[in-house]
Amino acid sequence: MSYPTALPRAAVTLDHGFLAGRARLVRETVIPWQWEALNDRIAGAERSGCVHNFQVAAGEKPGKFHGLFWQDSDLAKWIEAASYRLGTHPDAALDAELDRLVATIAKAQQADGYLNTYFQLVEPQQRWANLRDCHELYVAGHFIEAGVAHFEATGKSALLDVVCRLADLIDRTFGPGPDQVPGYCGHEEIELALVKLARVTGVARYRELARYFIEQRGRSPNYFEQEAQRRGEAGKLPWHMHHDGLGTLQAARPVRELTEPVGHAVRMMYLLAAMIDLAADRKDAALADQCRGLWTAITTRHLYVTGGVGTEPYGEKFCEPFDLPPDRAYAETCAGIGVVMCARRLLEHELRGAYADVMERALYNNVLAGLALDGRTFFYVNPLEVVPAVAKRRYECHLVKTQRVPWFGCACCPPNVARLFASLGDYAYAQTADGLAVHLYAGGSARFHAGVVPVRLDVRTEYPWAERIEFRIEPASAVAFTLQLRLPGWCRAPRLTLNGAAQAIENIAGYARLRRTWSPGDRVELELPMPVERVRADARVFAAAGQVALQRGPVVYCVEEADNGAQLSALALPRAASLAARFAPDLLGGCVVLEGPAVRTPSGESLYANEPPAPVPVRLRAVPYALWANRGEGEMRVWLRES
Amino acid sequence: MSYPTALPRAAVTLDHGFLAGRARLVRETVIPWQWEALNDRIAGAERSGCVHNFQVAAGEKPGKFHGLFWQDSDLAKWIEAASYRLGTHPDAALDAELDRLVATIAKAQQADGYLNTYFQLVEPQQRWANLRDCHELYVAGHFIEAGVAHFEATGKSALLDVVCRLADLIDRTFGPGPDQVPGYCGHEEIELALVKLARVTGVARYRELARYFIEQRGRSPNYFEQEAQRRGEAGKLPWHMHHDGLGTLQAARPVRELTEPVGHAVRMMYLLAAMIDLAADRKDAALADQCRGLWTAITTRHLYVTGGVGTEPYGEKFCEPFDLPPDRAYAETCAGIGVVMCARRLLEHELRGAYADVMERALYNNVLAGLALDGRTFFYVNPLEVVPAVAKRRYECHLVKTQRVPWFGCACCPPNVARLFASLGDYAYAQTADGLAVHLYAGGSARFHAGVVPVRLDVRTEYPWAERIEFRIEPASAVAFTLQLRLPGWCRAPRLTLNGAAQAIENIAGYARLRRTWSPGDRVELELPMPVERVRADARVFAAAGQVALQRGPVVYCVEEADNGAQLSALALPRAASLAARFAPDLLGGCVVLEGPAVRTPSGESLYANEPPAPVPVRLRAVPYALWANRGEGEMRVWLRES
Repeated sequence: MSYPTALPRAAVTLDHGFLAGRARLVRETVIPWQWEALNDRIAGAERSGCVHNFQVAAGEKPGKFHGLFWQDSDLAKWIEAASYRLGTHPDAALDAELDRLVATIAKAQQADGYLNTYFQLVEPQQRWANLRDCHELYVAGHFIEAGVAHFEATGKSALLDVVCRLADLIDRTFGPGPDQVPGYCGHEEIELALVKLARVTGVARYRELARYFIEQRGRSPNYFEQEAQRRGEAGKLPWHMHHDGLGTLQAARPVRELTEPVGHAVRMMYLLAAMIDLAADRKDAALADQCRGLWTAITTRHLYVTGGVGTEPYGEKFCEPFDLPPDRAYAETCAGIGVVMCARRLLEHELRGAYADVMERALYNNVLAGLALDGRTFFYVNPLEVVPAVAKRRYECHLVKTQRVPWFGCACCPPNVARLFASLGDYAYAQTADGLAVHLYAGGSARFHAGVVPVRLDVRTEYPWAERIEFRIEPASAVAFTLQLRLPGWCRAPRLTLNGAAQAIENIAGYARLRRTWSPGDRVELELPMPVERVRADARVFAAAGQVALQRGPVVYCVEEADNGAQLSALALPRAASLAARFAPDLLGGCVVLEGPAVRTPSGESLYANEPPAPVPVRLRAVPYALWANRGEGEMRVWLRES
Repeated sequence: MSYPTALPRAAVTLDHGFLAGRARLVRETVIPWQWEALNDRIAGAERSGCVHNFQVAAGEKPGKFHGLFWQDSDLAKWIEAASYRLGTHPDAALDAELDRLVATIAKAQQADGYLNTYFQLVEPQQRWANLRDCHELYVAGHFIEAGVAHFEATGKSALLDVVCRLADLIDRTFGPGPDQVPGYCGHEEIELALVKLARVTGVARYRELARYFIEQRGRSPNYFEQEAQRRGEAGKLPWHMHHDGLGTLQAARPVRELTEPVGHAVRMMYLLAAMIDLAADRKDAALADQCRGLWTAITTRHLYVTGGVGTEPYGEKFCEPFDLPPDRAYAETCAGIGVVMCARRLLEHELRGAYADVMERALYNNVLAGLALDGRTFFYVNPLEVVPAVAKRRYECHLVKTQRVPWFGCACCPPNVARLFASLGDYAYAQTADGLAVHLYAGGSARFHAGVVPVRLDVRTEYPWAERIEFRIEPASAVAFTLQLRLPGWCRAPRLTLNGAAQAIENIAGYARLRRTWSPGDRVELELPMPVERVRADARVFAAAGQVALQRGPVVYCVEEADNGAQLSALALPRAASLAARFAPDLLGGCVVLEGPAVRTPSGESLYANEPPAPVPVRLRAVPYALWANRGEGEMRVWLRES
């Protein structure tokens, strides 16, 4: 069996509609803007120091290191994003800029392959001395992903060579051998990067090293405990590891024993992504089963309705099952991207619409909330309920921002959004053994081969605002293949036509399967009715008990103070009230809003009363959650009471 | 005008019914048990060290100081409680024990009057050097209260002499003079204690010193800032002062400018208590107005339905108005006692039932929850919703205990409950200019004078379980006076009979006013119908939106896992369902439970669904909130959804 895989990046075009608009924003605004941030040229933003650090390490300028242990990774993720952009939209100036940057990085790399400006400039004696906290291998992982992306986009091997030298150093340093370090990184990332590197270079030992890192993790004697002992810190754990201890780093017990997600959410998702990749490449059925089990645990017990994960602000961690508080949601943008990454990888194992449903939920809601409409400000934390005065006041909400900001001292999320949206085609389509699968619906086209015959699939749609997706199939010549179109789990009654004639849908695990000999100009229309749905959480989700979230298609809605006034908790939706969906072209860049009758309980004189004021009728307007906080500061909430 | 004042403690008897039972528990179990705790004789409890510290300071035994800066205050509060007990229930053994302890304390006191075992034994050079954090004057305040109580109960002046020497030292040390320190304590308490001392000794300069401490607090230049500068800690604040800075200590601006409660809740309430006392003694109408304004702010914007205050766990502080989360409630037992203290003091200014309503709410719910049925374990923090696994897991709930504990490293609350319940008569009755006012209904009797005629009022009631209170008036001879019986705000239709004949009630500010010439054997019956009420919070209390708390009479109810199974959030009360009240003699020491039909939403297969499982009918049982967690660990919640 051959797994479905992403199309080459240049084979996918996104040219109209919502996702294309976001991708264009990332291409034209976010990536250049972040380059300014990485060069410390944005007034009022927290300083990055990333480019500066490399220039200093390369001897190109004097100066001191600025930032955190893992500062370099922000630059690596940006290079990855910029490379994706170059792959789909050639740009000589960006190409040259990247070449210059890569040359600086190559100059900064040490003779033995080591590359990390913090440890080169600040603590050269401490290399690999604190794998638990210092993220050296994590940073290396992001450079490896950047090197692979730059090579794939440009065919140039300058950065790939750098990261292979780095990976070779790591491969010599870590492992089970007598002169090797039996360690692994406190923040997973290098594992999935090494699998990518193995796939691109064909060098199997990179994959073997990824496997070693995963298998070794959490085994007894525990490497992090030994390492802490060597540093004279035995028995001491940093504060963010409260309650879970080394489980915060998925290292309290062997990874193979994990059945529930544990610890820091981004790390957990990155680890899972690597495990899914390894299970595929190594045809490890037991590991694949474990991955599916973990995915089920995450998506049936730990997932916000927005697709976010990680509910504990202290340590950015998974918490108890079903404990999904809206106000203290962490739901880090990066963790939502981790959900998207894992979903795509699971779809490569098995074409199941349920994976794509979660991918779409996370992408359209949690992840997109991370990015402002103007492409210049970002959220790290994505709560489902904000009362600004309270969020600013309560210590347990101190990481919640009520407005997006231009950059962060720890700026993992902004370039992560950039690299995801610059490679969105990877998530939209998959080449299957006998044709093409479409996971996400976005206006544009995809080129692939059916056997030896080149085929172009044109997609016209205003999804997710519109219900209709029109496909035009343009093979170079008539050819048989299977087109698999995802039937979203939220859609109760999809309809399909082929060249204008209604078709019975063959629903195979959430995909409409169309196998036939396709001729140029064949037309398929998929209609996905999008009534306004009231989504309820399982009764065990105590923070959402008795409340509903509004959803239309894949888009989860929220109410904002800008539309509904303050004290949003006083609003309730009558059970029988019907909300109408309307495309508002001038609102929030053009989006579908939901409007209808609601009631609002007025405030009274006394704090507690037996007979409260009667609710008064009001009009309610809900906007897409991902677009909140684009109109100044105000209250927001996703879960609404019914009355 | 003369203010209503408490009766002499020996004039009040509590001999049957609920409050008498609690008072007996405190007298017979809590006070002896806490003596064991203070002597470090309870296995498994956190060590107190209190008695040990004094014995060491007195030179009676060798050893080192144990505990926190303010450890002595636990002992002082216990002496106060034990003295109250001695005043109502003479006990030669306890009397002798107290004499021995007082002798040790007197021996420990330094020649100049200083008394604080921490600073005497550990940092003698640092006396008064860190008023902001070290609580020296707070500890002194509790000793002053103990000295007054011991004198009032026994007529012995040994401890009163000790505390007068201490107060004299403080009076010499602090003040506006050129050789005096212009400081005040980071934790208010000494202010109200000095007023008490002034009232008992007649020495006006103690009251003047209290006034100085209050007026000086928060003035510019700020004493705490100057002091921090002297310690080389300018600009640094401890973590619990986040957001409010010196406002955490009510010291960011002059006290006279406060209009909203701010900072640490216990400190705020103790400050307010002193302000109310001062306003009374000094006939300061502006200060009295300010106190009433602060009380209104607290009780209309910051009060839990249980009568608790302080909603922020970090710093045990007041938070934003209407931000009253049930799971992260701090609602410290001591702060609830502070509410009771302030309410009683306001009642001395003005007989208004509204003050007594809040006093009763706090007493029967928040405060009583602090004490286990067996009198041997205590709550410090009193949340309104607990899911044990989550409370133990979430860092912001790390101060919430799911079970009462025998003692605390910082054990302010247990002896505070003891001293309140050992002096409950102070809160139940007040001698007025022309008779007697009854604030709280408790089985027993009160002796007072109407002019020169001694009168005994016998009260027979099983309140708060029963609706009827029977009064028998026994003057030595027929005499005219006014009996004022509180008409609780929660009661919609009180009924009154005099010698069996129904009476129209003259309701004066929440008190039924009965003025007549009373003859021996006169009988008054007050009936306070107690239907089960569904209490709703104001719409601005977002954490309780759409939910109801069950209340019957003054008692707020909760549902517990022991009666209703886990996942209490899945329960909802149908709007039309009627709950029946039933006295359950064998449950939780005998109490009224509420029972009736409810619905429970079953759990489904998926985390989010458009059509959830239909709710199923169940029986619900609610028990008094104050009695929760007496049947092992489990979920609890006060606010219930309606369906």
